[in-house]
Amino acid sequence: MSRLTGVGVSSGRASGPVARVADPLPEPPATPAPTDPTAEAARIRPAADAVAEQLFQRAARVEGDAKAVLETTAAMAMDPALISQAEQQVTTRSLPAPRAVFEAANGFAEALRAAGGYMAERVRDVQDVRDRIIASLHGVTPPGVPELERPSVLLARDLAPADTADLDPGLVLALVTEEGGPTSHTAILARALGIPAVVAVRGVLDAPAVGAVVDGDSGEVELSDQDVPVQAAERAEAAEWDGVGATADGEPVKVVANVGSSADATAAAAAGAQGVGLFRTEFCYLAADDEPSVETQRSAYREVLAPFAGKPVIVRTLDAGADKPLAFLDMGVEPNPALGVRGLRVAFDRPDVLDRQLAAIAGAAADSGAEVSVMAPMVATAAEAAWFADRVRAAGLPRAGVMIEVPAAALSAPEILSAVDFVSIGTNDLAQYVFAADRMAGALAELNDPWQPALLRLIAKVGEAGRELGKPVGVCGEAASDPLLAGVLAGLGATSLSMAGAAVPAVGAALAKHPMPTFRKAAEAALAAATPAQAREAVRSVLAT
Amino acid sequence: MSRLTGVGVSSGRASGPVARVADPLPEPPATPAPTDPTAEAARIRPAADAVAEQLFQRAARVEGDAKAVLETTAAMAMDPALISQAEQQVTTRSLPAPRAVFEAANGFAEALRAAGGYMAERVRDVQDVRDRIIASLHGVTPPGVPELERPSVLLARDLAPADTADLDPGLVLALVTEEGGPTSHTAILARALGIPAVVAVRGVLDAPAVGAVVDGDSGEVELSDQDVPVQAAERAEAAEWDGVGATADGEPVKVVANVGSSADATAAAAAGAQGVGLFRTEFCYLAADDEPSVETQRSAYREVLAPFAGKPVIVRTLDAGADKPLAFLDMGVEPNPALGVRGLRVAFDRPDVLDRQLAAIAGAAADSGAEVSVMAPMVATAAEAAWFADRVRAAGLPRAGVMIEVPAAALSAPEILSAVDFVSIGTNDLAQYVFAADRMAGALAELNDPWQPALLRLIAKVGEAGRELGKPVGVCGEAASDPLLAGVLAGLGATSLSMAGAAVPAVGAALAKHPMPTFRKAAEAALAAATPAQAREAVRSVLAT
Repeated sequence: MSRLTGVGVSSGRASGPVARVADPLPEPPATPAPTDPTAEAARIRPAADAVAEQLFQRAARVEGDAKAVLETTAAMAMDPALISQAEQQVTTRSLPAPRAVFEAANGFAEALRAAGGYMAERVRDVQDVRDRIIASLHGVTPPGVPELERPSVLLARDLAPADTADLDPGLVLALVTEEGGPTSHTAILARALGIPAVVAVRGVLDAPAVGAVVDGDSGEVELSDQDVPVQAAERAEAAEWDGVGATADGEPVKVVANVGSSADATAAAAAGAQGVGLFRTEFCYLAADDEPSVETQRSAYREVLAPFAGKPVIVRTLDAGADKPLAFLDMGVEPNPALGVRGLRVAFDRPDVLDRQLAAIAGAAADSGAEVSVMAPMVATAAEAAWFADRVRAAGLPRAGVMIEVPAAALSAPEILSAVDFVSIGTNDLAQYVFAADRMAGALAELNDPWQPALLRLIAKVGEAGRELGKPVGVCGEAASDPLLAGVLAGLGATSLSMAGAAVPAVGAALAKHPMPTFRKAAEAALAAATPAQAREAVRSVLAT
Repeated sequence: MSRLTGVGVSSGRASGPVARVADPLPEPPATPAPTDPTAEAARIRPAADAVAEQLFQRAARVEGDAKAVLETTAAMAMDPALISQAEQQVTTRSLPAPRAVFEAANGFAEALRAAGGYMAERVRDVQDVRDRIIASLHGVTPPGVPELERPSVLLARDLAPADTADLDPGLVLALVTEEGGPTSHTAILARALGIPAVVAVRGVLDAPAVGAVVDGDSGEVELSDQDVPVQAAERAEAAEWDGVGATADGEPVKVVANVGSSADATAAAAAGAQGVGLFRTEFCYLAADDEPSVETQRSAYREVLAPFAGKPVIVRTLDAGADKPLAFLDMGVEPNPALGVRGLRVAFDRPDVLDRQLAAIAGAAADSGAEVSVMAPMVATAAEAAWFADRVRAAGLPRAGVMIEVPAAALSAPEILSAVDFVSIGTNDLAQYVFAADRMAGALAELNDPWQPALLRLIAKVGEAGRELGKPVGVCGEAASDPLLAGVLAGLGATSLSMAGAAVPAVGAALAKHPMPTFRKAAEAALAAATPAQAREAVRSVLAT
């Protein structure tokens, strides 16, 4: 029996036999050179097509998010740029086909990793596609989740979206990964599926184990060399939620969704979201090489707003930067893109791009009948917030707010709230800056835990400023999708919680379980804790009484 | 008359005629290919030697810091790796010699920029050497500061250390740069020379101007198309300082120095520093490819400690990371090195390296008779601080502290101060994280201004925790070297201020001018301000009464 600790990212406790997800295939060798490079190159496209076909077949058997993830990965396997670069590596450098696929895919992955942020999260997908094509070329079973025959705890280095997309929650008791962080796909999907998960468990793959007990709250994983009885986590009783975001004593806390496409918006509305707390508009810009016209933007936004006619929707203006580059903005390379010119900072040099987006949002608001507010990303000072609010009002939009994701903004919450109508706390980036710890770095996942007391203290300051000024304070980071943390955030002063649509019912149900004074007591207990584990424990003990 | 605003980085007001520092030469073309590549390549070494010779001649005419900077730049011009790479570019790619130097130097600069942090600050030096060698190959005057014939205000894109090193303060009234930030070499040297300076003044090079009025406090620069009367800034009356760091009513505030070599330490002791507030130990590791032995470290540290026998010295343990890479630690590439595994985080994986350094420090402390304390860089939580303090005590060292440079550490100051004996606030990195603004990015210099009220509020929290727990709180960032800000920091609770040795007398004199209650009033005025400019103005008005 050995006990390891990682970061609990999806709530619940489960135990059972372990199943291991095979590591990627060994690196394919660069020799021997093929005797007929043209024939060798010609093997690549059919192998890629076969991989895409398998993924499309898996996609056909599932629905919703899982389907979208599998289809996206399938499309990546057929990417003509990837295939033609791999073919060229064979013909110009006389590499064997598996090695050529390996190098071409790694070039793509490296560019994504260097871009950081959202782009870097795609690296695992490219590696997954790479390994599937290589396995197909070798005629072997692709690495990844094995076919499960009984309920199991899955141990993996890290999971690609395609691995987790069609997991059967009835057979997977819990997920434990050696790498990854609280905002990794493993974490997000595990929460959506209601499976306990612990990430960043160093050494978990090295330990011999037959059974495991996983605590997705404390982050503890006990490995045993003997059988462990199967015990599934209790599922959140989400079905009990009545669709009105409020505590047990009737204090309203809106339960809203983060969306980035019209498919997201439709799914979020179906899940019962009371509105949208974060509408990411990047999708509209990523689709084109040039800046999309006001008319193109207007109709794209209209489609996302449509399912929420008559309901509140907060639209975030473009959040680009060296970590999420857009060709038409020509943003160059920065040594630390996360600390660079991104979000609203881009607009100081290009206010025309912002003004065109605001005009499109105003048009789409009128078209759709949604109650639209607009907010800016990466605001650091009250002066920046006031500059943005002026432009929003000049565009005829009624409500302007800002994201609180830079520590300075949280420290200036009273001044910022005086300049705008509302704020929304982005806990993912805020944690990254407060702890000076890249949210994509597995080694620093523990610092990016949203239960860190120092982060909660800063959130409390923003909540307090909101209460004093009588203005709304939302939370739209991953923290809001943790049902246990949701009540704490409400107790700290959050008036709305915004999350992936799939998490909406569970969070709504969790808020309805206790009255606000109990959540305030839970919040105080969390603030007084010394570590994330102690904060979770203290809150659980308050809410158990 | 046009008025521009940048970031004031060196105090005082001056006016007079402008002199422009020529921009670098145009990019040398890659054609025509030399008819005799071997002969073309052979031109490079003599040109580089001539540049080095000129720089050594300038070095011979000056003393102290200026001498060291010019000698370093001269050595860089003779770097055999740079010269041989440039020669190879001629012989293998048939480039003209100027283009070959250009490309070889840019490769060096790119690697430094990618490394970030301290390494990135060397980029301007490499470019300076590049342009001087190219000018020498063309037989033209090198770009840079013109020979001044009368007192002038210098306008430049940014200044290399070699440009500013032998400036005659009697002829330079003020420095104004289009780029750069509060921690750039321009700023540091201007403060050391007592010349007003404003950096990050966008558009200053585009405006036609004959005369200028420069306010190094407010950051305002007035450009005129007519002559402006010559008016030099009043020099700080540093000579009046009695060498005892204290306010006018006798409250002690130690005035100590930041040092990174034995030359620094000797100069700081000569300038009257009461001790060392930040001894950067990286020099010892950068000198070798492998980890230096305990004995090597011990004797290197002993030399730095020697001038401070009987006086307090705070030694900072190794601050390496992907932004300050050391070959033997094999730290890899990170998308955001400033948010990566650096400082104490490296020691969690390699505690043996830390333990050997602590053993060497303990030995050097015994050898030198200095009152040595040890502190760790990049601490985020109280648990990390406690882990470090245990190891320091196990090494037989009497006092353990940590840097407060991660926002989370400032937010957890009471818990951290309970775990250690003292803290020291690193304002440069703290500002970078609090504002999520890379300190090397010129476009974000305004956010990195140490007068930002949100930063001062966080410093106030740390000062308050120090007072409550009765433990020392130092400040060791660039903020401490600003005589106007020094009193504010004392008022916020700093019990020691640590800075470049050259700034010690002026800061000591500034502290002696007012009693502590006045500095507390000044600190309150700064905290209540909305912007850095308002904070400076409010403090100046409190201290004028």
